[in-house]
Amino acid sequence: MRYFLYFAYNGTHFHGWQRQPNAITVQGVMENALTTVLRHPATLTGAGRTDTGVHAESMVAHFDIITPIENKQQFCNHLNSLLPPAIAVRQLRMVQPSAHARFDALSRKYEYRTTMQKDPFLTELTTRIPCNLDFCAMNIAADRLLLQTDFASFCKLHTDVKTTICHLSQAQWIQSNGQWTFHIRADRFLRNMVRAIVGTLFDIGSGRTSMAQFEEILAAAHRTAAGMSAPAQGLFLTDVTYPDTIFCNED
Amino acid sequence: MRYFLYFAYNGTHFHGWQRQPNAITVQGVMENALTTVLRHPATLTGAGRTDTGVHAESMVAHFDIITPIENKQQFCNHLNSLLPPAIAVRQLRMVQPSAHARFDALSRKYEYRTTMQKDPFLTELTTRIPCNLDFCAMNIAADRLLLQTDFASFCKLHTDVKTTICHLSQAQWIQSNGQWTFHIRADRFLRNMVRAIVGTLFDIGSGRTSMAQFEEILAAAHRTAAGMSAPAQGLFLTDVTYPDTIFCNED
Repeated sequence: MRYFLYFAYNGTHFHGWQRQPNAITVQGVMENALTTVLRHPATLTGAGRTDTGVHAESMVAHFDIITPIENKQQFCNHLNSLLPPAIAVRQLRMVQPSAHARFDALSRKYEYRTTMQKDPFLTELTTRIPCNLDFCAMNIAADRLLLQTDFASFCKLHTDVKTTICHLSQAQWIQSNGQWTFHIRADRFLRNMVRAIVGTLFDIGSGRTSMAQFEEILAAAHRTAAGMSAPAQGLFLTDVTYPDTIFCNED
Repeated sequence: MRYFLYFAYNGTHFHGWQRQPNAITVQGVMENALTTVLRHPATLTGAGRTDTGVHAESMVAHFDIITPIENKQQFCNHLNSLLPPAIAVRQLRMVQPSAHARFDALSRKYEYRTTMQKDPFLTELTTRIPCNLDFCAMNIAADRLLLQTDFASFCKLHTDVKTTICHLSQAQWIQSNGQWTFHIRADRFLRNMVRAIVGTLFDIGSGRTSMAQFEEILAAAHRTAAGMSAPAQGLFLTDVTYPDTIFCNED
């Protein structure tokens, strides 16, 4: 039978999600802990990948097991006790045996968090930005992204993807407690896409890029046309949604 | 002339506030940066001390200088550019030459922040507590502290203080966004006092200590009577107040 594991991680000291032979990754650390709890080799299939330094408030991965887990809370507690402080398991849900954490995801949401003031408590969790960015202009450009379907201009080069088509349902900067956060939701994301979009929006906010130039960037369909990638530490994967039908009704 | 510097720091990687010959301290790092900016040796006199791992959201220290600082914002920016990410200067205020950051303080406020859930983003900024603490009982005991003036039971042993008398104006647990924080304000604090009080309140919340035993602890006037000190990482100095009259009207 198959389970979805929901968890959060502080990506600061990990070389991203995906297991690598010679680097500490979230997947590697979690598979080791899961193998200890299950007492047999376990593999996790994530809803997606996050790069070095990127955080997740709510990531999802699936794994298979022969006998059902009777006490899910106890299972999560055991896993949390083996995992480092930077990874926290939140929830375990039984799903249909064919359910897939990556292929069945309906949408993913990312947030890009910024701060205008030096903040000793958010150093690794926000990106510091200048005080004079024009968020009104940045939101006009963000709004324009909702009409776009080809995001080739915001896709890391030499990535082996079949299509650069994505459908965005949200793209906006929202201010909360004096801090600006970019909220973006789509059916899928290309590698480096959010950071490339945020970096380009920063160029619009600073006046370096005009709306006319932004249209040219979108039309170019090539990564070199867009702005620099924004730093990793402000980026959080915050939500992955699935159809209700894949979950087993256990309770 | 004399200036008050207001600043915040993440205490995780510092051996407390006070300068020490062979350890990295907030005072040591800040005096070095200030010496660079002023181009002559500078010393800072803090409003108080914080121990290893304790944070400050708003700490105050004074320093002297011969010529007045013309552009205070520029001065703060220069200082911030020299300081590590864990220390942020917030404000500079000119004060009367006799004003003293420590002796003129009317009150200090500390907050002790807790979390009941494993949180990868607050590992160094909160203390994790069990879910079943009785905050109602803890607030009855906290309320009792407002009537207390001798805090010898919550003072680190072998400390060279003349008196253990303190006057509290606030002592309460407040829940916000699902997290419980202890708010305590007093005219002065003894060494280790907040952490000793919080540790003792935890014992009341878990049922290990009754209100009758709490009264005995208060009457004992000896540190060994009270509970263990709560860990440093949940503790924040959040406010220091002064009489308005010590500030120079510059603007």
